[in-house]
Amino acid sequence: ARNIRQAGIDFHQGDILLGAGLRIQPAHLSICAAANHATMVVYRRPRVALLTNGDELRPPGSDLQPGQIISSNEYALSALVRQWGGVPINLGTAADTPSDIQRRVEGAENPDVFVPIGGASVGDHDHMKDVFGHLGYEPVFTKVAIKPGKPTWHSRRNFQSVLGLPGNPASALVCAHLFLRPLMQALQGQKAGDDWIQAAVSAPLEANGPREAFLRGVLSHAPNGARTILPARNQDSSLLTPFASANVLIHRPPGAPALAIGDSVDGVRLN
Amino acid sequence: ARNIRQAGIDFHQGDILLGAGLRIQPAHLSICAAANHATMVVYRRPRVALLTNGDELRPPGSDLQPGQIISSNEYALSALVRQWGGVPINLGTAADTPSDIQRRVEGAENPDVFVPIGGASVGDHDHMKDVFGHLGYEPVFTKVAIKPGKPTWHSRRNFQSVLGLPGNPASALVCAHLFLRPLMQALQGQKAGDDWIQAAVSAPLEANGPREAFLRGVLSHAPNGARTILPARNQDSSLLTPFASANVLIHRPPGAPALAIGDSVDGVRLN
Repeated sequence: ARNIRQAGIDFHQGDILLGAGLRIQPAHLSICAAANHATMVVYRRPRVALLTNGDELRPPGSDLQPGQIISSNEYALSALVRQWGGVPINLGTAADTPSDIQRRVEGAENPDVFVPIGGASVGDHDHMKDVFGHLGYEPVFTKVAIKPGKPTWHSRRNFQSVLGLPGNPASALVCAHLFLRPLMQALQGQKAGDDWIQAAVSAPLEANGPREAFLRGVLSHAPNGARTILPARNQDSSLLTPFASANVLIHRPPGAPALAIGDSVDGVRLN
Repeated sequence: ARNIRQAGIDFHQGDILLGAGLRIQPAHLSICAAANHATMVVYRRPRVALLTNGDELRPPGSDLQPGQIISSNEYALSALVRQWGGVPINLGTAADTPSDIQRRVEGAENPDVFVPIGGASVGDHDHMKDVFGHLGYEPVFTKVAIKPGKPTWHSRRNFQSVLGLPGNPASALVCAHLFLRPLMQALQGQKAGDDWIQAAVSAPLEANGPREAFLRGVLSHAPNGARTILPARNQDSSLLTPFASANVLIHRPPGAPALAIGDSVDGVRLN
């Protein structure tokens, strides 16, 4: 009988197999099934409604006229929302008028989070904030002291959040990781902050200015696990191409001193 | 004009923005869109057909009779196929007859990979291998010298693969990571092997026997990046519960010596 296993060596009646706050991984599904549970209670996926704004935006594949630019934010943001456990809802590109923005917001089917993109920089019309204010969303913050991402804003109405992201594609990606990811983690009962790491820089860094900054970098692991981060050479906030290889945002506190190779930084993982 | 950026500082006509062999990440979609590409050429998602086998299998939530067990493999495997970039196709649970297995295999809509689960252990009827052999799939290997996972087998017919996995749920999960993941990576033009790591063990390990073994363990990172792996206490191949927390498979070569705390092992990341 040496190939016959005793009943109950894997788990017993009453055992807690999967604790609260866990992000369900593939193997968890088999554990749940093997314990004869046909259903499990989970947080529902947050519904995240993306709304871009700007008469100058055109879809990819367009013949551009002077002053027009390609709308690119919604593609990365939809994929990030999915990756972070949510359901993206695309409200399209609104014209630069309060009425078109309001029509699209009111037509959305009860999302947990609205993500208006663009329309909040100084000098823009800023119809986005106006419309959400008019609809009774209360400001929590109206800009942030970080670089890139200053125009990021946040309002709430009851259980609905609005997270306004900058229209600049690189800034939008950075601020989605800094603000939208933890918001979505909270909506799913997950612990935030697991995405922060420490590593040594493999190139010198200049002293930081007075504004908290996040620099794109490439995190690498030596075979023994030692981590290094190579900062992207050009950190201009308009640049998307550093995101082709970047997998981490290096955190630079206000007034942080210059760093030499091997000095330690903290950072946030991308994706 | 200091707030006006020069055209073309992000990329120029003819630049290669995203190289071949890259797994598309969210930011890559925005880069592609921003460069005014409405479409991109990618490997299509591999279609992976899962087929379980066994008269004794019942779905989760069943009142079990003596000799019956819950079918749990397909839930984790479907989720893993999705996570690894593929499309899972569920061919259901076949009865223990060649005709029912053949009917389900022939009814599948041209998958890239068939994954028959179970039915291949010594003493089983092994109708799975018989049916695929009868349909002209040629054996590449018929078992493997690893633990757990001995009954794993592989056949091919033209461009279609068959990867037979053990019916034991824990063995199926281990062998999916060791065999199905690299197969799916190859089908998508990805480099395999990125999932291997090195780390120090944080508990002693016994010497390994003559068969190559994969032990479940929990990989942790110290704040500075140093990695340690704690092996699960009970490595019985029938146990699913170690997968609730395991995130790595520790690799033990045939005849590997006993290890003390701090000794280095290599391993494969789970998920």
